[in-house]
Amino acid sequence: MSGLSTTHAPKGLEGVVATTSSICYIDGEQGVLAYRGIDIHELADNSTFEETCHLLWYGKLPSREELRELRDRFAEERKLDASILHRLHLVPKHALPMDVLRTMVSTLSFFDPEEKSNDRQANVHKAIRLTSQIAMIVAAYDRIRKGKPIVEPDRSLSHAANFLLMLNGTYPSSTAERALDIALILHADHELNASTFAARITAATLSDMHSAVTSAIGTLKGPLHGGANEAVFRILEAIDSSGADPVEYIKGMLAQKRKIPGFGHRVYHTEDPRATHLRQMSRDLGTSSGQTKWFEFSRAIEEFIMADKKLNANVDFYSASTYHTLGIDVDLFTPVFAVSRISGWTAHVIEQLDDNRLIRPRADYIGPPYPQHYVPVDKR
Amino acid sequence: MSGLSTTHAPKGLEGVVATTSSICYIDGEQGVLAYRGIDIHELADNSTFEETCHLLWYGKLPSREELRELRDRFAEERKLDASILHRLHLVPKHALPMDVLRTMVSTLSFFDPEEKSNDRQANVHKAIRLTSQIAMIVAAYDRIRKGKPIVEPDRSLSHAANFLLMLNGTYPSSTAERALDIALILHADHELNASTFAARITAATLSDMHSAVTSAIGTLKGPLHGGANEAVFRILEAIDSSGADPVEYIKGMLAQKRKIPGFGHRVYHTEDPRATHLRQMSRDLGTSSGQTKWFEFSRAIEEFIMADKKLNANVDFYSASTYHTLGIDVDLFTPVFAVSRISGWTAHVIEQLDDNRLIRPRADYIGPPYPQHYVPVDKR
Repeated sequence: MSGLSTTHAPKGLEGVVATTSSICYIDGEQGVLAYRGIDIHELADNSTFEETCHLLWYGKLPSREELRELRDRFAEERKLDASILHRLHLVPKHALPMDVLRTMVSTLSFFDPEEKSNDRQANVHKAIRLTSQIAMIVAAYDRIRKGKPIVEPDRSLSHAANFLLMLNGTYPSSTAERALDIALILHADHELNASTFAARITAATLSDMHSAVTSAIGTLKGPLHGGANEAVFRILEAIDSSGADPVEYIKGMLAQKRKIPGFGHRVYHTEDPRATHLRQMSRDLGTSSGQTKWFEFSRAIEEFIMADKKLNANVDFYSASTYHTLGIDVDLFTPVFAVSRISGWTAHVIEQLDDNRLIRPRADYIGPPYPQHYVPVDKR
Repeated sequence: MSGLSTTHAPKGLEGVVATTSSICYIDGEQGVLAYRGIDIHELADNSTFEETCHLLWYGKLPSREELRELRDRFAEERKLDASILHRLHLVPKHALPMDVLRTMVSTLSFFDPEEKSNDRQANVHKAIRLTSQIAMIVAAYDRIRKGKPIVEPDRSLSHAANFLLMLNGTYPSSTAERALDIALILHADHELNASTFAARITAATLSDMHSAVTSAIGTLKGPLHGGANEAVFRILEAIDSSGADPVEYIKGMLAQKRKIPGFGHRVYHTEDPRATHLRQMSRDLGTSSGQTKWFEFSRAIEEFIMADKKLNANVDFYSASTYHTLGIDVDLFTPVFAVSRISGWTAHVIEQLDDNRLIRPRADYIGPPYPQHYVPVDKR
């Protein structure tokens, strides 16, 4: 390219500040993550996913009345249209859950009562609806592909408890409900991660909320983003089924130059603050369920990688054992990430539209020098 | 944010070079657009959409044998699975064509024979398949929503002619075929436009081709990207139905501070080289169909805006009258853009994966200063 004043950015836009945002504060050196200025540790210890959604969408924690209203809205939206259920039944049983979720969210646009409106109020409504709907779609598709009946939602439950009910067909223990609730809080937002960035780019053409969230789901699907905890669990499973020593198994992977998923992060240069809670949760759930091996494997691997590679566990490392103990299948780990991150995606879309500008960078052309010439087919 | 070395980019990443690319050369000052170094004017005058696809995907114009092979591949893929047709029939008739296209491309992932492969060869195959499929989906949905029977593809035709056949139910004139073919060449790629950038971000997490193209379609949908020619035609229609003088109508819009679509471009500071061909095509098609008014309205508006605002017509301005004369409904203008741009999107996804790095910028936090504190609900 030539002719305009341009700045060359590092590959992958690393370290490039692409926008301002009031949603998520990260200090990668200090290991700080905060939503609207409130530290993730305080939220994980005290808040709920519903409160966190309110914080992300409206910029503040809800009053008692506002919280009641939001819970009511979530509960009201706890229904899947017959046409969505019909389409879920049509999906081939081999389909990847993330492909199904991406397709179903795209389909939901046909039936949205505010389909053609892109104003702030409509988009907050769509955020609430999509948050309820995505959880139900993930649970319902898992039931359908296993040949099990779909579980009716229970409108009296929290978002986390209702998801576990619809997934597993039984009411969750309060430990399990709280564990998932905390996991949903921890994954709710993470500034300009790739899926959120994709959602903002889609929204910035003045497309619509369903398009933006569909882009985000397709982007989250990739193993460099949403898929790492799935890769972590497949290693834990391989260790378990082979009876190998966890550290020896990892040494073997490193000897084959294989990357160990769940460690390091482009943004954090210290412990990922979310890992702190997930480690504790993995330990607690292991103890309460009598299945401590997944935590023990994980802990041994973490200590070895820290000593050998000076790499910290990230959000994905302990979410693997945590989710497994909650009864979530390994190929649903990324969809469960979406069940949480929908709150952050939609908050970012709303923020993008509050002060919008098309996101359209440039490329540095390194192909055949201009001008090449068209040569007729006979002379090629 | 804090703690890491960062660069603050202009809003919308304007002028930021986000990647290197060998696909598309643009010189915005000189009004140059070239694919793989070959000027768009030479391609529009001499090439076909099929040749252009080969150029974008393989980096060079095809030999006679390669061209025959690619045409055969396109023709082989000229079939819509019964399950896709069934789903198209299920779509509510009010659904927006871009929402339908986004959903159907996402759905196609379930049925792709290389669904779970993300290597280069599989992705070239997916590019060929999606190019054939997207054209058929746009045409088939338009027939279905109008209550007309779906038209069987004709494998002996060019891509452009087959699309017009499946859309209109009649074999196109050679003028119409060539006009669409040129329009498809002109729209095939445009470097890091927003939809292509979204596709690359999705691909860069190592997600898959269908996810990337789904993101691109949702991004193209927005009126700041794909929707401008639709907005142009709605103005031409309003001028026609009100009997107003075109220039007076535009003056009235400007007096109401309304933006006139189809003028100016973030990248070009001179005439958009694509506009040159589309102006000629709009004139020629108008003359050959005996419907010159759309070209005449357009020309009057262009001359006024150039004189009054010093703004050049862009690619969208004359594509409006061109597409209308080809029998394409106004709400299909953006889907027809996708029928062409699928070639560029897929070329960029393949290029991204050849030398991949996660695309993950940062945001500048401007929200409530850290740390805010969690306040229990009773005390809010």
